[in-house]
Amino acid sequence: MMGAATMTEPAIDRHTLFEFLLRMGDNTLILGHRLSEWCGHAPALEEDIALANTALDLIGQTQLWFGLAGEVENKGRSADDLAYLRDAYEFRNLLLAERPNGDFGKTLMRQFLFDAWHYLCLQALLGSSDRRIAAIAEKVSKEVAYHLERSRDLVIRLGDGTAESHARMQAGLDDLWPYTGEMFIEEAPDAALAAASVAPEPSSIKAEWHSLVAETLSEATLKKPADGYMHKGGRRGIHTEHLGYVLAELQFLQRAYPGATW
Amino acid sequence: MMGAATMTEPAIDRHTLFEFLLRMGDNTLILGHRLSEWCGHAPALEEDIALANTALDLIGQTQLWFGLAGEVENKGRSADDLAYLRDAYEFRNLLLAERPNGDFGKTLMRQFLFDAWHYLCLQALLGSSDRRIAAIAEKVSKEVAYHLERSRDLVIRLGDGTAESHARMQAGLDDLWPYTGEMFIEEAPDAALAAASVAPEPSSIKAEWHSLVAETLSEATLKKPADGYMHKGGRRGIHTEHLGYVLAELQFLQRAYPGATW
Repeated sequence: MMGAATMTEPAIDRHTLFEFLLRMGDNTLILGHRLSEWCGHAPALEEDIALANTALDLIGQTQLWFGLAGEVENKGRSADDLAYLRDAYEFRNLLLAERPNGDFGKTLMRQFLFDAWHYLCLQALLGSSDRRIAAIAEKVSKEVAYHLERSRDLVIRLGDGTAESHARMQAGLDDLWPYTGEMFIEEAPDAALAAASVAPEPSSIKAEWHSLVAETLSEATLKKPADGYMHKGGRRGIHTEHLGYVLAELQFLQRAYPGATW
Repeated sequence: MMGAATMTEPAIDRHTLFEFLLRMGDNTLILGHRLSEWCGHAPALEEDIALANTALDLIGQTQLWFGLAGEVENKGRSADDLAYLRDAYEFRNLLLAERPNGDFGKTLMRQFLFDAWHYLCLQALLGSSDRRIAAIAEKVSKEVAYHLERSRDLVIRLGDGTAESHARMQAGLDDLWPYTGEMFIEEAPDAALAAASVAPEPSSIKAEWHSLVAETLSEATLKKPADGYMHKGGRRGIHTEHLGYVLAELQFLQRAYPGATW
């Protein structure tokens, strides 16, 4: 449980707060980039536009998180600097966000698993003792509620669809499941963040996430995988090889033409 | 026909010579990078090692061409500068070299179509009036003769193999064929290069290439596609979207850590 918000700037060191803001922004940046890879390739025009819109929402949210992160860090780094001039080991996103798109079904399954976590996380952040964080959570939670509604709906339609779509959704789920455990793992800064009521303990949203996911998978006639080995490390900067390729594409322009604007 | 070599440095302006050397090095760099993408992914260990060895040969050849290019340009750019610090519009490789790998059969078909051209081109360059070019051609043509022997052999084995391997080779061939015409197109610098006996006119190796390819495809029981529309532009810096992604990966390290050495 988070305490009541009593201060503008809670009693927490800058570095811990900065790390937390990076986590939030890195998730939305990397997943937003992954979704943008679909642009022009989705199986139907409406889906192409919907994915591109979700990508734009996530990139927009990244600007909010990174803008505040730069302010908190207080070293003169802009949101763009944080997006374009860090290397993989400085990224704090969940490994789930950097998973390759796979087919359309897998992309939507990844989106649903993330959206469910993202939505619950933002709900908790509405009560953050840092009112700047609470304000961002308020601003973006409507978008994310819509992302979740949409990805949940599509997971159900495709899971409970044709034999082919069902098989693809199940395969996507089985492949992605080992990347969901990381959402709820306690890392070093989490105790301090929770003690200062800045952010919830990761484990505090686990039950609700599992219940939302279980209900959706059941409606989608999909089988929830057993909780076996779970990958982790993303939030500590230990990433899979995929992130390097994402960053190479994402950062090329600013790396090749430092400071370029338009 | 090229004239007899009578001078060390032929009567040709630096810029034209530099462009020619970039062409040679960009082909080997980009194709070498494409082959390196297979590392760890080829269908059999022996093939994995063979592709990696070919990639290494091509990267090694790139160093020779770019080393001379930097010397000719005389602006202090090293081979590494030319590889890592140019953007797509400055690249002069054939579009064929930047085509995505596709499956193993398509990769080998691309290799064979390129090797056949590469081999014939180097044979002509053995008589270049620029003895530095002739020396590089001599040094690398043994490697390339082996590349050609190997890719030709595999094209025949897989084309004249199972129904599945035959279908894949034919599909690869059909897809790549429209990228072969560019090899023989006359671009602005070619007349000057041929007049100074530095390099053959591109069209001068066309007949021999076609005859070698036709004979191989026939042995492979593959159907040579009709000569329809041919893509072009690579040698003038007009590239497909694929090159940008290749460069983003290839150049990340030097772009992110300028001047890094190890």
